[in-house]
Amino acid sequence: MSAAVQSVDVSEGPLAIIAGGGSLPFAVADAARQRGRCVLLFALRGWADPQRVSAYPHHWAFMGQFGFFRRTAQAEGCRDVVFIGAVGRPTLRQLRPDLGTLRLVPHIFRLYKGGDDHLLSGIGRIFEAHGFRLLGAHEVAPEILMPRGTLGTRAPSERDRADIARGLALLHATGPFDVGQAVVVADNHVLAVEGAEGTDRMLERIAELRRGGRVRTSTGGVLVKAPKGGQDHRVDLPSIGPQTVDGVARAGLAGVAVVAGSAIVAEPELIATAADRANVFVVGVGGDGSA
Amino acid sequence: MSAAVQSVDVSEGPLAIIAGGGSLPFAVADAARQRGRCVLLFALRGWADPQRVSAYPHHWAFMGQFGFFRRTAQAEGCRDVVFIGAVGRPTLRQLRPDLGTLRLVPHIFRLYKGGDDHLLSGIGRIFEAHGFRLLGAHEVAPEILMPRGTLGTRAPSERDRADIARGLALLHATGPFDVGQAVVVADNHVLAVEGAEGTDRMLERIAELRRGGRVRTSTGGVLVKAPKGGQDHRVDLPSIGPQTVDGVARAGLAGVAVVAGSAIVAEPELIATAADRANVFVVGVGGDGSA
Repeated sequence: MSAAVQSVDVSEGPLAIIAGGGSLPFAVADAARQRGRCVLLFALRGWADPQRVSAYPHHWAFMGQFGFFRRTAQAEGCRDVVFIGAVGRPTLRQLRPDLGTLRLVPHIFRLYKGGDDHLLSGIGRIFEAHGFRLLGAHEVAPEILMPRGTLGTRAPSERDRADIARGLALLHATGPFDVGQAVVVADNHVLAVEGAEGTDRMLERIAELRRGGRVRTSTGGVLVKAPKGGQDHRVDLPSIGPQTVDGVARAGLAGVAVVAGSAIVAEPELIATAADRANVFVVGVGGDGSA
Repeated sequence: MSAAVQSVDVSEGPLAIIAGGGSLPFAVADAARQRGRCVLLFALRGWADPQRVSAYPHHWAFMGQFGFFRRTAQAEGCRDVVFIGAVGRPTLRQLRPDLGTLRLVPHIFRLYKGGDDHLLSGIGRIFEAHGFRLLGAHEVAPEILMPRGTLGTRAPSERDRADIARGLALLHATGPFDVGQAVVVADNHVLAVEGAEGTDRMLERIAELRRGGRVRTSTGGVLVKAPKGGQDHRVDLPSIGPQTVDGVARAGLAGVAVVAGSAIVAEPELIATAADRANVFVVGVGGDGSA
């Protein structure tokens, strides 16, 4: 693999965007282009939206095709790489490892056993060992980070603020365990902690519990999201989108709070519109819940 | 309420067992009787099993009928009280407060806002303020506590032991937040943290995630239960039963671990049989996961 580690000065080459699902990859691509940077999408089959991908220079790839990525990205003069967009933890069947990947299998297998953090930061190290520079989406497109304050018109109440602070404290405590990045707190009571199911399913669970009469609170409650303690911010910042707002509304919550500067919002205008329509708040706060 | 605080020497009177659902109340009643203690069940409508209740001296009560309980228990010469068995967090509709309870409403309302721990330990204090002595079920029937070692023949592997230790460490971290008493860990990866949904529904979630291909681990994983840090052990020790073992099996897990001496097992023989039938382990460990 001697070719893999040769370093060429391609810092001004196109930005390689390995694109999963949702609208985030396109928000990042647009923001990078507005800065005058060329982009090249490596769209992940089964995740990236084919219609939207077609509007950008792109290659399709299966997850796990590291050899293909390495050759193609090098041929196209890419050095900087961004991972962005939703991907599940792939099944072994979904992975289509090529030779470049197979050589890495023992390494990846070890990563696979340590939770998402190890997996993702380990993948980052693999890219770097092959001469690429892994950047966070927020580094190439800082405008996708959640600002302080609210999107939309509704703001959290004092009691919501207390729930937000409690949620952030809990996420701080669970950070070292590589568990979910989100909790739901209502009236100081922790209703749910995100695990492998993800935020959307956790919100569905709250809606179900409410229908079953197992959740009854006067204030509604708050979805709180924060990056994990040991998280590699280049590959896995928490993100919210209009569908998060819809899930929050269906769960009967008062709103959603994320740590300003540490969460990605692809489409702030759409989020604000969705928040106002559903009468929920969307707020960026300090790491301790401060306004 | 002067009658409420009068103290009579009734320490040898019948043990009042406020009985919720499941088989635990009867296991406790039988164990107390075997020690020569008379028992009197206050069976909670909607939760206690009518057929089994009828085999013991009993009164039926709705949750929230504290005045009825106080008068009746005092008339029957009860001083010692045990709460045992499954009860959901009651809806306001399920509560049928009588006058004795209504007087306590402002107090209870405050308790309701602080999560289960506050609610339960607060109820304990109310009973004590009225001259009763609240005992833990394990104090009157220590044989219902989980022992060290396994029930059934299967034992945890070394990797299961690592998952157990990680689960206990996570539960230790979340203890101060009055969140659930259970987590699922597989291959060092936290799959689920129990919230308001309870253990059984959390296990259903794992089964669903597995069917959806979102959980793939080589070892299966372990359900780990531990008492919360600030928990009042007299009212809310974690418990496991045959249905827990069935849920663990349906979730595709390798087994369940609880802290020996800090978890209740109503029917160890039935649990052992269920564990062997499902080929899962059920183990009592030290608070740090030690064998």
